[in-house]
Amino acid sequence: MIRNITNVRGIKCWGAHTGVKSMRRDLAIMYSEVPAKVSAVFTQNLVIAEPIKLTKKHLQESNYMAQAIIVNSGNANAVTGQQGAEGALAMAQTAADEFKIDVNQVMIASTGIIGQKFPTEEVVDGIKENVKKISENSRAGSFAANAILTTDTFAKEGYVEFDIDGNTINIGGIAKGSGMIHPNMATMLAFAFTDINIDQKLLDKAFKEVVEDSFNMITVDGDTSTNDMASIMANGLADNEMITSASDPHYITFKEKLNELMVHLAKLIISDGEGASKFIEYRLSGAKTREDARKIVRVVSDSSLVKTAMFGRDPNWGRILAAMGRSGVSFDVDKVDLSLGNEKEEVMMMVQGKPQEFDINLVKRILKQSEITIKMKLREGRSSAIGWGTDLTTDYVMFNSMYTT
Amino acid sequence: MIRNITNVRGIKCWGAHTGVKSMRRDLAIMYSEVPAKVSAVFTQNLVIAEPIKLTKKHLQESNYMAQAIIVNSGNANAVTGQQGAEGALAMAQTAADEFKIDVNQVMIASTGIIGQKFPTEEVVDGIKENVKKISENSRAGSFAANAILTTDTFAKEGYVEFDIDGNTINIGGIAKGSGMIHPNMATMLAFAFTDINIDQKLLDKAFKEVVEDSFNMITVDGDTSTNDMASIMANGLADNEMITSASDPHYITFKEKLNELMVHLAKLIISDGEGASKFIEYRLSGAKTREDARKIVRVVSDSSLVKTAMFGRDPNWGRILAAMGRSGVSFDVDKVDLSLGNEKEEVMMMVQGKPQEFDINLVKRILKQSEITIKMKLREGRSSAIGWGTDLTTDYVMFNSMYTT
Repeated sequence: MIRNITNVRGIKCWGAHTGVKSMRRDLAIMYSEVPAKVSAVFTQNLVIAEPIKLTKKHLQESNYMAQAIIVNSGNANAVTGQQGAEGALAMAQTAADEFKIDVNQVMIASTGIIGQKFPTEEVVDGIKENVKKISENSRAGSFAANAILTTDTFAKEGYVEFDIDGNTINIGGIAKGSGMIHPNMATMLAFAFTDINIDQKLLDKAFKEVVEDSFNMITVDGDTSTNDMASIMANGLADNEMITSASDPHYITFKEKLNELMVHLAKLIISDGEGASKFIEYRLSGAKTREDARKIVRVVSDSSLVKTAMFGRDPNWGRILAAMGRSGVSFDVDKVDLSLGNEKEEVMMMVQGKPQEFDINLVKRILKQSEITIKMKLREGRSSAIGWGTDLTTDYVMFNSMYTT
Repeated sequence: MIRNITNVRGIKCWGAHTGVKSMRRDLAIMYSEVPAKVSAVFTQNLVIAEPIKLTKKHLQESNYMAQAIIVNSGNANAVTGQQGAEGALAMAQTAADEFKIDVNQVMIASTGIIGQKFPTEEVVDGIKENVKKISENSRAGSFAANAILTTDTFAKEGYVEFDIDGNTINIGGIAKGSGMIHPNMATMLAFAFTDINIDQKLLDKAFKEVVEDSFNMITVDGDTSTNDMASIMANGLADNEMITSASDPHYITFKEKLNELMVHLAKLIISDGEGASKFIEYRLSGAKTREDARKIVRVVSDSSLVKTAMFGRDPNWGRILAAMGRSGVSFDVDKVDLSLGNEKEEVMMMVQGKPQEFDINLVKRILKQSEITIKMKLREGRSSAIGWGTDLTTDYVMFNSMYTT
């Protein structure tokens, strides 16, 4: 039996089919038996979907407390104007009525087609019908994980645990996001749940830092959805002594474990590229600052030239170096090492700025594999970053050029 | 007979085959009979090719005066270390010796494969052999235009003229850059020549502003080469009264004409996409500032999702709006107009933030054509920008995934 979000004390959920999508589950209901502390991050896009606007407002009103998350898939409720805003409110209000909680205790999210009338009736009826089905059975957790998908080819679930004074702390999460972004469905969603007892400000600090090292370090094509959202709910039901300090060793362990979960979910998203043939890990070390390290990893992993080279199994270090060079970060090019490899092997392409002779057959063998690690080493300082990306394939172009109309 | 850079008084040139490339011309020599004032812009990449380093140094030493430009294609002389630096110097020194001018009067550029030993001997011998062939015959101008190409499918030349008090001012230019960027050959080069008599500071001002509106508004894949360079030489042989003020009507006409030439060359680069099936013009109006307008145009024209939609003839305004929204520019989404069209027809996709019903057959007819105009209108201010791009095709991926090794 798999362990998932339903292993977190007090978390019950369900995933249902309401008819917004023709066949697959399209409504997820996630509920905590007691109000939980929340931390959340939202899309930086200026165009923001209606559910995101409402959820932000609710969290402000509730001082970052919530008890339910409702997610529909199939319709993004973005660029839908007044009709969409009313639909979002109806969605939250229905859940609040059914659960008998205040509406500002309800977070909502949507994912699917942009700019089409929001199917308020189907979603509202679906909530009414399915709230009573919520369960802490692990199957119900998987139903929820499936109900938030759009073009994903598999559901993305994760679970980690650790111990505080003999007491198990559970952390579970689900996510969606297809490695290859499809028409109007670019949304990345992630919902984590934990029963740890922790101060909201510390929860917020841990979550936001972990998002920086996980979801903010994956790239598929550089586009940002109008509906992106990631959140964590901590309901305190583990009943550990409340964590109130960032130097508390339990806080440090919590953050490590949360990072493990979120990186796991982020990698699952990258590996779900229908159009992608490779999973690529980018490791940069020796940067002056962490921000420098991140910036270089992001630019290189998002470079079309690097990505097509990986698709073509071409050890084209010139493209990697050129992408590093346009990242805006200053470094001494004559001190750069570059290598291509995987878990077992590593081939140096460049050492201290000098191109190396390498065994082309070994490199070709490495590049044939579906997981590749590109290491970049500077000699500027001691900061590092890791990121993940895909190759750019002819299939990506085909998927993304299909008619929406 | 075509008119080109050889129509500029005192400009002589040649394009030769030295053997660095197997078949095509690979060495361009351009010469002004008298020292010319220069303005130039160079790659912003941190990794800078040896010829660019040397040319920057020469221009500083000569106070932005030069008499010759030597360009080789086939080898980029980038990431070539000491050997490359020496090769670049030999290239410039040989030209200086042959022309009997100071070495700092020589500008050089290279384009081709990165990280391979620079073929100093072939290039130096080629210069010695071909300097005597320079000519003001228009055919010699075309030879030079051809000699700077790498994967381009045609040579890019342009010429404009205007009149100052009955005296013709000639402006000619050549450029290279393939619409689809190929392995290690992403370089964009442009060399303009004019016989106008103008103060160097004003030449510099006009040239840099015009570059912003032409070469800096085209995008293929967002990557920046280590070898990019654009320059103008003004040798004053038109003998007009020296232009010394930006409010001089002749300055204004000069800048307009120079802009016409540079936009022409920039559009030629975009239309030379072997992998591209469409030429797309992006027009944004109603922005608060010119910088805002440019930023939005650049982000939208560089979006993989917008570009694949264009390839797929998909009127996906949601992707355009989402790209605008992540540009970092603040605007009221409820006041945006979007349209798709061409010279004859225009279909509104969104008006004041509201998606429009449109004739899908008309839109499909428009999107079938090879030239498309996307108009974006904000209601924030009076600034506008125009940019040009291509679609993202399966051929792009194929071309760029080919082995270099």
